[in-house]
Amino acid sequence: MTSPLPTYSDVVDAASRIAGQVCVTPVLRSSALDEIAGARLFVKAECLQETGSFKLRGASNRLLQIPEDQRAAGVVAFSSGNHAQGIARAAKRLGMPALIVMPSDAPQVKIAGVLADGAEVRAYDRGSENREEIAEAIAAEHGAVLVPSFDDPMIIAGQGTCGLEFAAQMAERGEALDHLICCTGGGGLITGIALALEGGSPETQIWTAEPQGHDDWRRSLDADKILANAPGTRSVCDAILTPAPGELTWAIGRRLLRGGCVVSDDQVFDAMRAAFRHLKIVAEPGGAAALAAAMFALPQAAKGKRVGVLVTGGNVDAEVFADVLKA
Amino acid sequence: MTSPLPTYSDVVDAASRIAGQVCVTPVLRSSALDEIAGARLFVKAECLQETGSFKLRGASNRLLQIPEDQRAAGVVAFSSGNHAQGIARAAKRLGMPALIVMPSDAPQVKIAGVLADGAEVRAYDRGSENREEIAEAIAAEHGAVLVPSFDDPMIIAGQGTCGLEFAAQMAERGEALDHLICCTGGGGLITGIALALEGGSPETQIWTAEPQGHDDWRRSLDADKILANAPGTRSVCDAILTPAPGELTWAIGRRLLRGGCVVSDDQVFDAMRAAFRHLKIVAEPGGAAALAAAMFALPQAAKGKRVGVLVTGGNVDAEVFADVLKA
Repeated sequence: MTSPLPTYSDVVDAASRIAGQVCVTPVLRSSALDEIAGARLFVKAECLQETGSFKLRGASNRLLQIPEDQRAAGVVAFSSGNHAQGIARAAKRLGMPALIVMPSDAPQVKIAGVLADGAEVRAYDRGSENREEIAEAIAAEHGAVLVPSFDDPMIIAGQGTCGLEFAAQMAERGEALDHLICCTGGGGLITGIALALEGGSPETQIWTAEPQGHDDWRRSLDADKILANAPGTRSVCDAILTPAPGELTWAIGRRLLRGGCVVSDDQVFDAMRAAFRHLKIVAEPGGAAALAAAMFALPQAAKGKRVGVLVTGGNVDAEVFADVLKA
Repeated sequence: MTSPLPTYSDVVDAASRIAGQVCVTPVLRSSALDEIAGARLFVKAECLQETGSFKLRGASNRLLQIPEDQRAAGVVAFSSGNHAQGIARAAKRLGMPALIVMPSDAPQVKIAGVLADGAEVRAYDRGSENREEIAEAIAAEHGAVLVPSFDDPMIIAGQGTCGLEFAAQMAERGEALDHLICCTGGGGLITGIALALEGGSPETQIWTAEPQGHDDWRRSLDADKILANAPGTRSVCDAILTPAPGELTWAIGRRLLRGGCVVSDDQVFDAMRAAFRHLKIVAEPGGAAALAAAMFALPQAAKGKRVGVLVTGGNVDAEVFADVLKA
């Protein structure tokens, strides 16, 4: 079964649907960061979204489209933590039971966030268990809706509302984005944003940001076909470690994305410290990847230009953040 | 020489004057914080303002009113750091030389911020030197304008723009503030906000938040006369340690403020951790005092109500913040 690809108008519809469910996150500026990057950075602080990441956008858009008579059966998802929290919050608001399959080594703050919203957590072992199979079995047993974390038209359209909002905020300033960099795991956010900008800011060139060893999107875009990561590569960016571009996200991304940037763990830590110091925001490792790319791996075409940077999540354990600050 | 007191219309004028010089800071929500406080908190994250604090508002409003032919002589200020950075940034934009008298034990990040904007720093010893005298002597020597950090009508009106913005953001949500809590040193911000709300949200009851041993405002409001703090009391809240309410700020505050909340250093640290965890923002100790008050010292009248909370600054050294997170 192939789902139809979402379009710009699906993103616009999603924005009306989820208005009031999400907050408008600010666009931040820092002359110090501009100097480091050699460009004018406009940082969309989506880590300030409720639940600490953009994932509430897609989750709200998806769950609001579940017919009321199917809501009692609940929702199931698998996620390393940000999608989990988005689903848990959206489900709580609709009075839906939610169960999330999460890796046993997920950040504590993410597990706690899910539990605080009343969802159940089923932990699994990343090495020996298959989360999709576990989630599908539970969903089938309860007749619950299984909500994928990125390869779903309503999820993509929901995340894209962030791009609509960004373009509108730039227009209010009398500016436009020449380039945009977004961290990329499965690609739900960046392709949703790409759809939004296709309608609202078509000149913007869009770049992925990925950790070393997880640059499946950059390599896929270069080769013009889906390439996967070698299994087993580690990275601090827990939120954006997916094996390969999704079917739907790739179909959108291959058409609308310009290319990719790759950053090291140390560059990500530097970006987290820079976000702390110059922007006063808390970025988790995966959430800081695009800022790291802007600071240390900016494409030549973007030098001196207006560059949108997504900081996508802030769900990092206090101990980890303290260690990064002290390093 | 007595300056005339600023009014609501001065705040409105200031907002037009500084539009484009400051950013609109977001209002953040957290169900976890609501539960702790026993009220609906609306957190105005003014730590995300450029330069990392609200002080850029007043500084911009003041410096933009210096006639062009007097700008070359420059500006002088004394400040523990946030006013310093506001003045340095506003001066840089106007091409004005700036010199700031700062305590030698000011947070490194504040000194670095001032220097990064091209201002000069003159360090003084808190124990043995008088910063006002040093600043006045330097200003007189150069014919420069001395800009006080709070007891100045244009500074108060400039800080008040934060209150106008907050009231408008609440109205957009279809809400209004029943109460508002703001950390208070000299009182420039809270009295500016009080003027703004007198015009734009007159039902809102406004409360100071101060560190233990520095509760001059609370005691002054209770006694209906200016009372000073005992000298020598220490607190982690470097940004809000002033000896007594100012002349102008008191004249406004005694009329418009409802009362005061007092918080301990440990409560401030708890609030910094809560802001990190639930809001993903970086609050410096003084900047977290009002959140600490909302969490641990909320006036009985505000229980269950809609409470505006100002988080006013995020300029804290990484080492200090890491220690707070690990405590």
